[in-house]
Amino acid sequence: MKPINVGLLGIGTVGSGTFKVLQRNSEEISRRAGCAIRMTVVADKDTARAKAVVGDAARVTADANEVVNSPDVDIVVELIGGYGIAKELILKAIANGKHVVTANKALLALHGNEIFAAARAKGVMVAFEAAVGGGIPIIKSLREGLTANRIEWIAGIINGTSNFILSEMRAKGAAFADVLKEAQRMGYAEADPTFDIEGVDAAHKLSIMAAIGFGIPVQFEKAHVEGISKLTQDDIRYAEELGYRIKLLGIAKRKATGFELRVHPTLIPSSQLIANVEGVMNAILVKGDAVGQTMYYGAGAGSEPTASAVVADLVDVARMLTADPQNRVPHLAFQHDQLSAVPILPMGEVETSYYLRLRVVDKAGVLADITRILADQDISIEALVQKEPHAGEQHVDIIMLTHLTQEKKIDAAIQRIEALPVVDGKITRIRMEALQ
Amino acid sequence: MKPINVGLLGIGTVGSGTFKVLQRNSEEISRRAGCAIRMTVVADKDTARAKAVVGDAARVTADANEVVNSPDVDIVVELIGGYGIAKELILKAIANGKHVVTANKALLALHGNEIFAAARAKGVMVAFEAAVGGGIPIIKSLREGLTANRIEWIAGIINGTSNFILSEMRAKGAAFADVLKEAQRMGYAEADPTFDIEGVDAAHKLSIMAAIGFGIPVQFEKAHVEGISKLTQDDIRYAEELGYRIKLLGIAKRKATGFELRVHPTLIPSSQLIANVEGVMNAILVKGDAVGQTMYYGAGAGSEPTASAVVADLVDVARMLTADPQNRVPHLAFQHDQLSAVPILPMGEVETSYYLRLRVVDKAGVLADITRILADQDISIEALVQKEPHAGEQHVDIIMLTHLTQEKKIDAAIQRIEALPVVDGKITRIRMEALQ
Repeated sequence: MKPINVGLLGIGTVGSGTFKVLQRNSEEISRRAGCAIRMTVVADKDTARAKAVVGDAARVTADANEVVNSPDVDIVVELIGGYGIAKELILKAIANGKHVVTANKALLALHGNEIFAAARAKGVMVAFEAAVGGGIPIIKSLREGLTANRIEWIAGIINGTSNFILSEMRAKGAAFADVLKEAQRMGYAEADPTFDIEGVDAAHKLSIMAAIGFGIPVQFEKAHVEGISKLTQDDIRYAEELGYRIKLLGIAKRKATGFELRVHPTLIPSSQLIANVEGVMNAILVKGDAVGQTMYYGAGAGSEPTASAVVADLVDVARMLTADPQNRVPHLAFQHDQLSAVPILPMGEVETSYYLRLRVVDKAGVLADITRILADQDISIEALVQKEPHAGEQHVDIIMLTHLTQEKKIDAAIQRIEALPVVDGKITRIRMEALQ
Repeated sequence: MKPINVGLLGIGTVGSGTFKVLQRNSEEISRRAGCAIRMTVVADKDTARAKAVVGDAARVTADANEVVNSPDVDIVVELIGGYGIAKELILKAIANGKHVVTANKALLALHGNEIFAAARAKGVMVAFEAAVGGGIPIIKSLREGLTANRIEWIAGIINGTSNFILSEMRAKGAAFADVLKEAQRMGYAEADPTFDIEGVDAAHKLSIMAAIGFGIPVQFEKAHVEGISKLTQDDIRYAEELGYRIKLLGIAKRKATGFELRVHPTLIPSSQLIANVEGVMNAILVKGDAVGQTMYYGAGAGSEPTASAVVADLVDVARMLTADPQNRVPHLAFQHDQLSAVPILPMGEVETSYYLRLRVVDKAGVLADITRILADQDISIEALVQKEPHAGEQHVDIIMLTHLTQEKKIDAAIQRIEALPVVDGKITRIRMEALQ
C-alpha cells in the first residue's frame, strides 16, 4: 500500500503532539492502518517554531494554501482553531477533494452543518474525534458503538479547566479567583479564560454530541450556557454537606416535546462515579435505552491525548481508503500479517506487589524469621500490621504489603514461611496494582 | 438501499434482547445504517420459545443449517455459545460467504485465530463487540479509537458476577458462599458458576483485548487464571483498613521481554475510579502512551446491554456494505437526509431540581413567606437547612433543595423571593441532576 500523506495546518500544542505521536508510533500505526501515515508538509506562520518540531522530516511553509492545494496531500489536519481562516482552509481542502481531520469544536459547533454538506458534495470525510473529550473516543462510541440505542441523555464533564478549578476549590477550600490564577500559572487555563469558565467551550462540545446522539443538526445557538465564575466556597461546602458535588456538566436530554441542551454547574450525588472525576480529567455519561448507562473517561485536553484522537481519525481515513470488507478494520486491530510473536510471559516472571496474610503463634522472634526469609528473596516490605489476638487465642493475624517483586520470589518465600512451625496453615496472597 | 437480512442462531437472553432492540429501535437504526436491518429467520431447538419472542415477525426453525445456508441471509448472528456446534456453524456461515456477528468469547478465546483466518480467506467480517464488556464499546475503542497509541496496559473488571459478589461481600460483610447463593437467586450467577468465579470468563475476554491492544494472536492458553472463591471477609476488611479494595482484574501488560496476561483478585487503591465500580457493572482501564489512561464503564452483561453491542456490529457491517468514503459513517451518525427537526427546548421548559441558597434576616415568618411563594409555583421542597448565624450577624443562610420543577417556575419564584425585604441580595440557584 502506498503511504498516506498528511498536511498539517498549525503546529501548536496539539499539532506538535500529532507530529511526535505519528513519528514515535509509526511502526504500530502502520501495522494497524495497513499503510504508512506520514506528515509531509506543515504550515505555520511561525516557521521557526515549526522547524524546531519537525526538523527535516517534513516540509515547512508559512503559506497554508500550499498545504490545502498540494496534489501530494491526501488528508489535511486543521489545528489552527477559531472560525475565520480555519473555516476557509477547510472548505478549500474539501473543494480540492482532500479528507479533513480537525479538532476545532468552536468551528464545528457554529458551522458544522455547512462543512459537512460541503464534504458530502465532494465525497470526502471530515473527521473530528479530537473536538470532544480530547483522546477519549467518545465521538466514535456515540456514532458507531451505541448505534443500537435510542439515546435518552448525555451528561458530560467536558471542560478540563472548569473541572480542575472546581476540584481545587473543593479540595483546598480556595476561592474561585485564586484557583483560576493557579490554573493559569499551571497552563490549565488560558490568559483569557472566558470560553472555558463561562461554559462556552463545553456548549460547543455538547452541541456536537447532541447532534450525533439524537440525529439532529448541530445547534450551538440554542444551548443554554452558564459557567462556574459565580460559584462560591459556601455552595461547594453546603452541597457537600447534603451529599452532593458540584460539577460543570453539559447535558443533552430527550423529552417528549424536544431536546434539552444546557451547560451549567450541577449538583450530582457524591456516590455517582462521575462525581468523583477530578482535576483536568473529562468523563461523559451516556444513557441509551438498550445499553443503560455507559461512561467514557480520560484526559480531555493536552498535547498527546488530543493528538491520540487526531491520529485515530487519520487511521480511520486510511483504513477507509483501503476498504474492502475484511480489511477496513482488521479483526485483531492490527493487519493479520502484522501480528507480533512477542511471548506471553510465564507467571513467575510477572512483577507486582503483594498483600500477604498469615496466622502465626504470638511469640518473640516470629517476625524476625519471616522478615529474614523475605529479605533473602530481596522482597522489601511496605507495610506490616500485626492484629490483636482474639480473646483466648494464641494465634494472631499478620498482614504485610510488599514492594514490587517477582512472582517466583514470592512463591519461594511463601513456601519457606509456610514451613515455619509457628505459622498456622496457608498464607493468603493477593496481588496489588496501583494502576498508575 | 435494500434491507440487510439477519439470521439468528440461538434465541436465549441475548438473542431475544437483540430481536427486541432491532424491532423497537428500527427507525433510529435504519436512519443510522442507511438501510433497514431486519431479523428474518431464527434457529433455536426450542421453537416454542423462539415463536413466543418473535411472533410472526420472523421465520422460526429448529435447524440451524437453514440459517447458515439460506441465500437470503446476509449476516449470521451466533448466540449459542460454547465451542462445539457454535464453531461449526460459524465456519459454515463464513464458507457460505456470510458475515458473522458473535458474542462468543469462549470460542474466540480458544479458536479466534482460526475463525479470523477463515473469514479473511472468504472476504467476510466477523464482528464480536458483544464478546467483551457487554454493551461497552471497548473492542471498537481499542481497535479504532486508540490506534495512535502504543498500549502499555489494560486492566479491567470484566466479569460482572465476580464484581457483584465482591461488592456484596464488602458492603454486607457476608461470606463468599452466602453471596454466591444470593447471586444465583438473583440470576447474576449460573447454576454452575465456575467460569465466572474462577476467572475463566474474565481470561477469555482479557486474551481477546490483549490481542487487539498489542497486535498479538489470541493466546488464552497462556493466561494465568485465578478466581475469587478463596477470598475471605478478613482479606476484604484488612485491605479496606489499608486503603484498598479487592477486585477481580484481568491485566495485560507490556514488558520489555514479553506480555503479562493474568486474571486474579487484586488490591487497588480505593481512591482509583475503577475501585469504585460496584455490583454487576464492568469497567476497563486502558493506558496508552499518547492518550494516558482512559476508562470505559457500563453493564457488562444482560439481555439488552449485550444486544446493544450485537446490533452495533450489525450496523457496522451494514455501513461497510454500503461503503463509500463519505457514507460509511455519516458525519453526524445519522444519514444526512435523516436528521430530525425536533426542536431544542427553551430553557424555561427544562425540568430539573434545584439547590437554592439565600441570605435572610433571622426573624419569625421569613420561612413561611418563602415557602408560600414556592408553593404558589407548585414547587415542592425536598430539604431545607437553616445555618446558624455567624457571631454578631443578623443574617442567616438558608439552603433548599427542591423536587423536580420547571425552570420558568423557579425563575418566577426567585424573582418574588428576591423582592422580599427580609432577603439580602441575590439568590444562588444551582441545578441538580441525579443522573439515574
